[in-house]
Amino acid sequence: MTLENISANKSYGGWHKQYTHQSKTLHCEMRFAIYLPPQAANNTNIPVLYWLSGLTCTDENFMQKSGVQQFAAALGIAIVAPDTSPRGEGVADDESYDLGQGASFYVNATEPPWNRHYQMYDYLVDELPQLIESTFPVSTKRAIAGHSMGGHGALTLALLNPQRYCSVSAFSPIANPSNCPWGQKAFTAYLGNDTSKWLAHDASELMRQAKNFVPAKVDQGGADDFLVEQLKPETLVASAKANSYPLDINIHPGYDHSYYFIASFIEAHLKFHAKHLL
Amino acid sequence: MTLENISANKSYGGWHKQYTHQSKTLHCEMRFAIYLPPQAANNTNIPVLYWLSGLTCTDENFMQKSGVQQFAAALGIAIVAPDTSPRGEGVADDESYDLGQGASFYVNATEPPWNRHYQMYDYLVDELPQLIESTFPVSTKRAIAGHSMGGHGALTLALLNPQRYCSVSAFSPIANPSNCPWGQKAFTAYLGNDTSKWLAHDASELMRQAKNFVPAKVDQGGADDFLVEQLKPETLVASAKANSYPLDINIHPGYDHSYYFIASFIEAHLKFHAKHLL
Repeated sequence: MTLENISANKSYGGWHKQYTHQSKTLHCEMRFAIYLPPQAANNTNIPVLYWLSGLTCTDENFMQKSGVQQFAAALGIAIVAPDTSPRGEGVADDESYDLGQGASFYVNATEPPWNRHYQMYDYLVDELPQLIESTFPVSTKRAIAGHSMGGHGALTLALLNPQRYCSVSAFSPIANPSNCPWGQKAFTAYLGNDTSKWLAHDASELMRQAKNFVPAKVDQGGADDFLVEQLKPETLVASAKANSYPLDINIHPGYDHSYYFIASFIEAHLKFHAKHLL
Repeated sequence: MTLENISANKSYGGWHKQYTHQSKTLHCEMRFAIYLPPQAANNTNIPVLYWLSGLTCTDENFMQKSGVQQFAAALGIAIVAPDTSPRGEGVADDESYDLGQGASFYVNATEPPWNRHYQMYDYLVDELPQLIESTFPVSTKRAIAGHSMGGHGALTLALLNPQRYCSVSAFSPIANPSNCPWGQKAFTAYLGNDTSKWLAHDASELMRQAKNFVPAKVDQGGADDFLVEQLKPETLVASAKANSYPLDINIHPGYDHSYYFIASFIEAHLKFHAKHLL
């Protein structure tokens, strides 16, 4: 696999870098960003937090707006931010912001025209970590986090792969996609009309049935415009209670769905992951 | 004056808000952002740091990318980020990124077609602080900071108005605009061909002649692509030495001209201003 480094910015004593590579899983060129903390200069054993962004984002939004570098540098954790979908002229797309490019929902699509490129689940679970771990001075200790659609992605990837992730956290996740408009639209397109197949990618369903627990932290803004119709954290809470799942979830009055909310609480998420990664 | 609140995001316990108003100085509608720290809920005496952004920016870049809210909240300082120029269909503009809208250089233009709207110096020194201080729970203690073109703006506004600002800081300022391509292009357009008029807006010239000192802090990335041709901090250093001006300036190896650099050192700037504001 050939990586091309396309940008580098020194940040909090470490380095933010962007790379492109040809993905064999997604059949297109992909871009990702990595933040290597200052400790990576003298240590080949840095744990990695993968960050999955929300609808319409790329690898850039979180790296530019969350302020994560300050805390990753202090704790010695690398951050990897992949793109939110396959991209390019030959990749299926849709005019709406919540389907197609920028809106993969982090599943393996089974339905045409999506099934050729939209294999983000496999890309994130297998191809990307292999690439990261064979290229950068990092360990195989992984955590995963995300926002909104990426919060859904982080929770479902961790719940389906408890042996691969030390911890999982989410801001404002789409917690019960089988039962909200965003999830129903995407799952119908990518996975088809058989709703039983959707449950394998629904965090609330997976948390209710989980046998191996990955410690989980969720933060949600109380003034989030999408809270009631799209996000449904109460379903995730009910699943955690029913299964005695170790979920630390908090609703923060006044906070919305934006990166201002994420930035306000990203330190707590990094410290949570550090407890399990370090 | 009528202010319209167009956005509000809770951030680090305080509020980031955007407002529009009709500027009588600039003869157009202007937008600005303000961060009110949590202390503003119970205190009507919050000092204000004004932030001037660089070429092509609006009020949003600094608020979204610098991480300033964390430190403003901890210290109890309000942040005001104005736009970088007058805006709108009726406002003179140029196709290039370094002249016209987004590139005011924070002067009062004397030359047509710029002189009707491009009166940013008066807007920033008089109209905007009056509006802020009559609307929000803030004191008249002011500091000013900026980046690149905004670093030039912050230094020149403070040097020309030492009675109005407690402290000034800059990231990667255009430190000697009379002697660099960006400055020469802008000053020719806005101020005309008489280069003696440019010196009243050149930080290096003003610092060399200053009689009343505003404490000043400057940080510059050593790997900044614009360092040699456009920024010229060495001229500012020579002026400070010649005039025994209290300038704390540091060059940081490896850092570039981006917001990743600003975010890495914004805490130190806030603490510097806090010493003089609080």
